[in-house]
Amino acid sequence: MEGSHLSDPQFQKLIQSFSSLPGIGKKSATRIGFHILRMDPSTFQTWLSNIEEAKVKLRFCDECGGLTEDAVCSICLSDSRETGILCVVEQPEDIFFIENTKEYVGKYHVLNGAISPLDGIGPDQLRIRQLLKRLEDGEIKEVLIATNPTLEGDATASYLSTVIKPMEIKITRIAHGITIGGTLEYSDQYTLGKAIKSRLTL
Amino acid sequence: MEGSHLSDPQFQKLIQSFSSLPGIGKKSATRIGFHILRMDPSTFQTWLSNIEEAKVKLRFCDECGGLTEDAVCSICLSDSRETGILCVVEQPEDIFFIENTKEYVGKYHVLNGAISPLDGIGPDQLRIRQLLKRLEDGEIKEVLIATNPTLEGDATASYLSTVIKPMEIKITRIAHGITIGGTLEYSDQYTLGKAIKSRLTL
Repeated sequence: MEGSHLSDPQFQKLIQSFSSLPGIGKKSATRIGFHILRMDPSTFQTWLSNIEEAKVKLRFCDECGGLTEDAVCSICLSDSRETGILCVVEQPEDIFFIENTKEYVGKYHVLNGAISPLDGIGPDQLRIRQLLKRLEDGEIKEVLIATNPTLEGDATASYLSTVIKPMEIKITRIAHGITIGGTLEYSDQYTLGKAIKSRLTL
Repeated sequence: MEGSHLSDPQFQKLIQSFSSLPGIGKKSATRIGFHILRMDPSTFQTWLSNIEEAKVKLRFCDECGGLTEDAVCSICLSDSRETGILCVVEQPEDIFFIENTKEYVGKYHVLNGAISPLDGIGPDQLRIRQLLKRLEDGEIKEVLIATNPTLEGDATASYLSTVIKPMEIKITRIAHGITIGGTLEYSDQYTLGKAIKSRLTL
């Protein structure tokens, strides 16, 4: 029976639920598990039903793929947004990060990933067909590609650039460079290299 | 309506549920929230019910305060454990960490915290009365105090030492010293100081 504290199947399932979430290791999951067990029952019920309700009510926009409670999200429906520019991102959460900057007032398109042949993800597994369809009517004059500066994100950007170019739409890519508040010393060589290549005239 | 992606009340509640957990900031909570929304419904239901079931079935041992499904935990009930030594810890999860070392085969006692006058936690708010009661029958010959090496943990250890001493029970404290695999350079001065004071003859 020794060590059975550790192997209690209920507790293992609890830990497993949390360690299956992104960014949570086994030690954090254990801490969270005990936090849950210490919650008073009514706080726990609120906690649980907030998650359950969100899961039931939230969905992804039929148009852009972003987060919404309805079929089409409020950004897609908004009249006060620029309609001539479309920002392409990998994941719905990327919309949050870009909205947070308050530097962008156009519309969005979520790909739901990036091209990654090793993981079996090609253009057909992404929302690229839907993107091209949105570009067909000629209203969109610029596509801002904001995929991540990774191998997959860059591959996706160059693929999109190839397929969109014939449509005579301006294609832009978010700039890579050294972090604001950062120093050259702590910037990695690739980022610093990109920052030098993309230098701006003052 | 702009920025309403960010302020969707359902999504805010979802994020709030996760950022209320220990060690999870707003950015991680957002990532986890989207992970939840992407789960297929049956995986989500299993995820949710594993947490709910654990919360209903698990409780804290009437004797030691550790994790259990029954009134008294398997460590307290075990005949194969040393009964002459009691390890005192701050939290039920500390039992896990000590069990993991496989260096201890006695019984445990959880205080449910440490003395912290600034937070209004004195001896009466902890399971100290229950501890003294367990020591009364004279079966326990050694109390190993394994509270954390913090201000609060040390204060608790010295308080316990004062109240237990008249009972003629041996009182020990886990050793503090430099981490195994660590170097003097990266050890903080207080830990290194403790390691020198607690030096052992080879």
